[in-house]
Amino acid sequence: MLGRLNHVAIAVPDLAAASAVYRDTLGAKLSKPQALPDHGVTVVFVDLGNTKVELLEPLDAASPISGFLAKNPAGGMHHLCYEVDDILAARDRLKAKGARVLGDGEPKIGAHGKPVLFLHPKDFAGTLVELEQA
Amino acid sequence: MLGRLNHVAIAVPDLAAASAVYRDTLGAKLSKPQALPDHGVTVVFVDLGNTKVELLEPLDAASPISGFLAKNPAGGMHHLCYEVDDILAARDRLKAKGARVLGDGEPKIGAHGKPVLFLHPKDFAGTLVELEQA
Repeated sequence: MLGRLNHVAIAVPDLAAASAVYRDTLGAKLSKPQALPDHGVTVVFVDLGNTKVELLEPLDAASPISGFLAKNPAGGMHHLCYEVDDILAARDRLKAKGARVLGDGEPKIGAHGKPVLFLHPKDFAGTLVELEQA
Repeated sequence: MLGRLNHVAIAVPDLAAASAVYRDTLGAKLSKPQALPDHGVTVVFVDLGNTKVELLEPLDAASPISGFLAKNPAGGMHHLCYEVDDILAARDRLKAKGARVLGDGEPKIGAHGKPVLFLHPKDFAGTLVELEQA
């Protein structure tokens, strides 16, 4: 069922500073910052060739990553996003296996315009997992 | 400078349980567990097609991931490993940019038999970064 790693999301308190680290210190290729008001974040994509890192900065205190940054003020890895072919089939399989899908269990449109679901970190080795229909 | 994402390492308290989650719940392809006494861990590789997740369980209390698990008993994302072509050139560039290389700054032979270095999480958006010469 599990497909490619779509991205690793890193929550950061200062997107300009984190972008400078990836661009200037590590020499990576970066996108321009994109504000995604529906998701409460501004994002910069780091192109790694085989996958990407997404640097996420909260748009405001109500952002889904604000709580994480309150606990991790320097930033840190926030979630992993895996691709699946069929998100409804994936959800039903996960629920049948006893894994918890966050929210109401219905896919939402994610930051890439595709259906996504988030899974409970306690059921996945302490890691917040996003599934995205590829 | 920055190449592909070689792996995402997830530290886990129970490798058999985490493997079952990735194999049975998520339907991923897994390697057999390999004990790496030089690194203080037993590892299972999760094949994602474009990159991999490494599930790491400490071999004993002296393992480099034991402290992390004491703070994160359910497990969690431990580090990201990026590939570079030339690890000494990468190190020199990073030091010139003011980034801190952990340990004595000399590459060690990593879990894949290749030279690696670890970088200080505080200099990389709260993320422990491993560089591996590809």
